Amino acid sequence: MDQPLASRTAPTPRIDAVQLNADIEATARFGGTGNGGVSRLTLTPEDKAVRDWFVARCIELGCRVDVDPIGNLFASYPGRNAALPVIMTGSHLDTQPGGGRYDGVLGVLAGLAALRALKSSGIVTEHPLTVVNWTNEEGSRFSPAMFGSGVHAGAIALDEALAVRDRAGISVGEALDAIGYRGSQAYRQTPAAYVELHIEQGPVLEAEGTAIGTVTGVQGLRWFDVVIEGTESHAGSTPMANRRDALTAAARLILAVEAIGRAHAPGVLTVGHAGISPNSRNVVPGRVNLQIDMRHPSQTGLDAMETALRQAVAGQADSRIERIWAKQPVAFDPACIEAVRQAAVGCGLSCRDIASGAGHDAAHLAALAPTAMIFIPSRDGLSHNEREYSSPRQCADGAEVLLRTLLELDRRLA
Amino acid sequence: MDQPLASRTAPTPRIDAVQLNADIEATARFGGTGNGGVSRLTLTPEDKAVRDWFVARCIELGCRVDVDPIGNLFASYPGRNAALPVIMTGSHLDTQPGGGRYDGVLGVLAGLAALRALKSSGIVTEHPLTVVNWTNEEGSRFSPAMFGSGVHAGAIALDEALAVRDRAGISVGEALDAIGYRGSQAYRQTPAAYVELHIEQGPVLEAEGTAIGTVTGVQGLRWFDVVIEGTESHAGSTPMANRRDALTAAARLILAVEAIGRAHAPGVLTVGHAGISPNSRNVVPGRVNLQIDMRHPSQTGLDAMETALRQAVAGQADSRIERIWAKQPVAFDPACIEAVRQAAVGCGLSCRDIASGAGHDAAHLAALAPTAMIFIPSRDGLSHNEREYSSPRQCADGAEVLLRTLLELDRRLA
Repeated sequence: MDQPLASRTAPTPRIDAVQLNADIEATARFGGTGNGGVSRLTLTPEDKAVRDWFVARCIELGCRVDVDPIGNLFASYPGRNAALPVIMTGSHLDTQPGGGRYDGVLGVLAGLAALRALKSSGIVTEHPLTVVNWTNEEGSRFSPAMFGSGVHAGAIALDEALAVRDRAGISVGEALDAIGYRGSQAYRQTPAAYVELHIEQGPVLEAEGTAIGTVTGVQGLRWFDVVIEGTESHAGSTPMANRRDALTAAARLILAVEAIGRAHAPGVLTVGHAGISPNSRNVVPGRVNLQIDMRHPSQTGLDAMETALRQAVAGQADSRIERIWAKQPVAFDPACIEAVRQAAVGCGLSCRDIASGAGHDAAHLAALAPTAMIFIPSRDGLSHNEREYSSPRQCADGAEVLLRTLLELDRRLA
Repeated sequence: MDQPLASRTAPTPRIDAVQLNADIEATARFGGTGNGGVSRLTLTPEDKAVRDWFVARCIELGCRVDVDPIGNLFASYPGRNAALPVIMTGSHLDTQPGGGRYDGVLGVLAGLAALRALKSSGIVTEHPLTVVNWTNEEGSRFSPAMFGSGVHAGAIALDEALAVRDRAGISVGEALDAIGYRGSQAYRQTPAAYVELHIEQGPVLEAEGTAIGTVTGVQGLRWFDVVIEGTESHAGSTPMANRRDALTAAARLILAVEAIGRAHAPGVLTVGHAGISPNSRNVVPGRVNLQIDMRHPSQTGLDAMETALRQAVAGQADSRIERIWAKQPVAFDPACIEAVRQAAVGCGLSCRDIASGAGHDAAHLAALAPTAMIFIPSRDGLSHNEREYSSPRQCADGAEVLLRTLLELDRRLA
């Protein structure tokens, strides 16, 4: 696992793990909650502060920084051949309210760390390298999430994104102007490849003791609402045999949903919400609604799960189901995935293929360019939480794999 | 079923079904909701109005009316032998907010109808007969419920009941003074027997097509709180095998609870409330609390159910259970029950034994005197609801059985 890179023959740039950790601590102060977490919603004064910090670091390194009209920040480091398209990495510096210090931030800072490693080792890539900070990955203030990368990839119209308003009535355009990050023209580079490092936000790597997740794609997602009707009645005077208890019917369905999830691995199926009516101790429940979240890396898998789910609901009297939202699965580029795998092996780190359960900017980029992602373990699988944590060593391992992947892609694509 | 009483030899007083129905409609105007229901909380101006109406009707009939210090109203009609203790019937004129026009009211008005029938047929009983309106059966404004009969039976101290305050800070004593129904001294009669007519408030009689329920007692009750701990995690990134889903664990327990209820008939076991945390579609639930209502006519039955319930919870990892309230079952007097049964048969009405699932003033009276109750069907089992309904015929049947029971008890106890 810890085979020293010094034993290899080629001179290899190394990530400065101490500096990377210092950068994580530095950015965590912008919007720091005092409990180890960060609340740094997109396009707020805290977001401006971390952007200013990031731009200053990039300029120190000799990058050119571009800001596009949706506020995406592109820091580009020159390669040997200016005619080649850039190889891009990055993620996002905004957080959830009461979020952690790694989600998104690590991907941006690891990009910075990779540029630093190249600079200090004197290595110059063929392609220019660009580190990007996407606007509004989280979607906590403005909906939908990931609209910075969405606009860049052409999935979301710029005008529509600029017109979105937060709960206070402030539009995205106004918020960009207020912090001085509305760029004048689009950054029109279509990258040769895009690689994003991110924390897993799930328990798989930690549970297995695996250092690196080679992300093969982003799961597709379907949301369903289910309603189960019963008859509200007096808990004392209604014999068991005379009941139409909506909650016991819901319980049968919840267990059926769990069984369908288990039968369709790597898919997952969750009843995250149950609303019971009237939800009073001494009244037999008359109505239950369930909110269901379904994910699978493949369309076929999603279809099979949906068929099974609909059968389970149909088998339950007086129940109905409605699909209210769907997102297609995204498959990353096999060559990019292989580059990540080889980089992990090259670093002497254990790795495994994994599908991302959560959405990421990389899912938008995959429509534009060959794309892959790198995951590192999340302690207890926690994310969107002040207790979110990955160790300095895990973060540095991820950055090291990112750096090697960028170099590997630079070689392959040149 | 409809054998005419006229074919019998003995002259038998008959309930005036039309007048009874008119009285139900008359009382329903005091606090009428406009949707067929009644909101007449205890000791409010609406309650004063219906009490005034009731007292006037009783005085018209030639009754003596006593008011005790908790506001219970006793309307006594003389018998042949003033030395005998009274035979008592009645119920309550207060309702739930948004309640119906039958719950409680029927029992009082049927008592009045019985006295009317005796008067118009010229029959005089041996015992004096008393029709009572108990204060605060419902407990919606002042807690606990049924404190009028509780004070009468010695289960609740008068001073404590008078000191209870509503949400506006008004005490029971103040409320009694405000409507002029605080009596100066206790009505000290211990009745020879107590019989109460009430709507079933459950679906059994209607479902079976049975006219009369011979109530054998009031079920005992135990309330439990259960907490099931899991691990809150991301619905997208937590594989099924890595989850500790508190809601699926709760679903298994809900089904176990239902099975225990079914295995312990005539007991009933209900999960009426489930609180899910965080109750968000895309988060695997980390914690569920359940509120459970258990009832059974016998202590042994309750004990067996509680043992089974505790075993079910113990079999569920990371779950705990707490009993938060218990009420003993009440068994009514076998001779009084038999008198009701014979009265129903005498009226040519179908009847069946039934345990009351809800609490009633009769449960307090059972500690003081031989007691029984009579149930008539409730449409759809509904009560505490504006749609509560029993037909004029069903109400008159119940009153007829009450009248015959009073006469039967008068003969037996003389």
